Amino acid sequence: MFEQLGLIGCGLMGGSFALAMKKAGLVQRVVGYSKSPSTTERARQLGVIDVEAPSALLAAAGADIVLLAVPVAATEATLKAIKHLVTPQMLVMDVGSTKADVVKAARSALQGQLGSFVPAHPITGREVSGVEHADAGLYHGRQVILTPTERTLTAQLRRAEDLWTQLGARVSSMSPESHDAAFAAVSHLPHMLAFAMLSSINAQPNANELLALAGPGFRDFTRIAASDPKMWRDILRANRDEVLAQSRLFKQALQGLEDAMQADSDQPLEDLITLASHTRAHWRMGAQRGHKDA
Amino acid sequence: MFEQLGLIGCGLMGGSFALAMKKAGLVQRVVGYSKSPSTTERARQLGVIDVEAPSALLAAAGADIVLLAVPVAATEATLKAIKHLVTPQMLVMDVGSTKADVVKAARSALQGQLGSFVPAHPITGREVSGVEHADAGLYHGRQVILTPTERTLTAQLRRAEDLWTQLGARVSSMSPESHDAAFAAVSHLPHMLAFAMLSSINAQPNANELLALAGPGFRDFTRIAASDPKMWRDILRANRDEVLAQSRLFKQALQGLEDAMQADSDQPLEDLITLASHTRAHWRMGAQRGHKDA
Repeated sequence: MFEQLGLIGCGLMGGSFALAMKKAGLVQRVVGYSKSPSTTERARQLGVIDVEAPSALLAAAGADIVLLAVPVAATEATLKAIKHLVTPQMLVMDVGSTKADVVKAARSALQGQLGSFVPAHPITGREVSGVEHADAGLYHGRQVILTPTERTLTAQLRRAEDLWTQLGARVSSMSPESHDAAFAAVSHLPHMLAFAMLSSINAQPNANELLALAGPGFRDFTRIAASDPKMWRDILRANRDEVLAQSRLFKQALQGLEDAMQADSDQPLEDLITLASHTRAHWRMGAQRGHKDA
Repeated sequence: MFEQLGLIGCGLMGGSFALAMKKAGLVQRVVGYSKSPSTTERARQLGVIDVEAPSALLAAAGADIVLLAVPVAATEATLKAIKHLVTPQMLVMDVGSTKADVVKAARSALQGQLGSFVPAHPITGREVSGVEHADAGLYHGRQVILTPTERTLTAQLRRAEDLWTQLGARVSSMSPESHDAAFAAVSHLPHMLAFAMLSSINAQPNANELLALAGPGFRDFTRIAASDPKMWRDILRANRDEVLAQSRLFKQALQGLEDAMQADSDQPLEDLITLASHTRAHWRMGAQRGHKDA
């Protein structure tokens, strides 16, 4: 399907994409670049990429597909660096967790070449990062959200849909703004709450004793708190307004539980927990919208 | 080690204890009682118990060890029901997630027989309940916290320690009050936050769409929100003051993150997330106190 993948950013997300493309037989050759030369070298040693490129520009040269898997804050500079190689025949994608800022950066950097860019957000990840954890199965069975602009070329959008589908992902499209509002609720705020949970324990004088007593509930609840700090700094700042709006709604819900804990009767608290528990028990990851039990 | 286990409450925790005791060869016979006769019958059909008892009293009759695995709010009534069978030779334990209220209930119900009672909290659980999920391995590799009173007989405390150790658990002791303060931080508040997360999403008009987009981070963060509502209503109300105190500390930490998100510089947010992420990444469940990296 593709001759040459130019991979810019050979970390967990980018490296896993390269491995998945190779495994699916969708690409002949992968030319990779990472900001750190040792990462690029390691990616080649691990067979994640075939050729090391000394710059983003040289990674994109000769490619018919380019994947940006860099921190979202680096999107604009990276696209600017490769801009004069981007043609209408080339598919360019990113894998960032925020989309309004990425689209804004792409408009500014690509200008007349914006049509080749298909913003993408695969709903996956790990609490670990780095090319050593790259995994050909990272995207299999996951959702991928595409947020095309009004200038995106239909041909490139279709290629992107086909590609992710062939990697075993389920593809849907929405606007960058709707995407960011939704992921503030279901991803960015949960990360922020998990960071706050660890901060709150760290601030207590017996933090080590508390942590030694924590069990499997704490383990799963806080898993995402181990995520990459720079990546999450960028996500939370890029999507700040939506995250703060979700935080306000969350604090109202928390206040509702606190009030119910102090009510005369057991019933209000039981009712709130029952609704939350029922919703979570019937939720299935990646179920079709409106068919939560599917 | 024991002749007969009287199991009062044949759900996930009680059923798993019976299976673990049998598997370890620590008990000859299990006589079980559950409030619902169909649960007791199912427990016998599944081989979790050997004999069905029609009451808590008859489950305890002839037992040299009694385990209460009932909602913590039912502790006092259950201990009262078996009180005149409790002897200094009998080991009586519970498995409740709160301990100050259980000790208070035991003082009131057992009075002169309080010495036989060793309050226990195994740090384990599932988001599912019921005897069908009983698992002989549920306690293996977990911590068990014992919170003896000043009246607890040393002989029974030692038997409890030996028993849990033989089931593969790591045993430690603390006061009921210290226990409840610590578990408000590392277990009860996380559950409350997970319930609040689901409540907050449910309250939004596009809740189904949001849930359909949620991925693996949300899945793990909210797993504990599917926990049993009546059990958690009781825990949160029994340990209300400590949980509210932890909620206050948590909201301060959350405010700190919100302030950092809105700061002029990226650095304050990166610093807060880095500390949280580092703490979580180096945490190991059940590591010795003060040796988090062990």
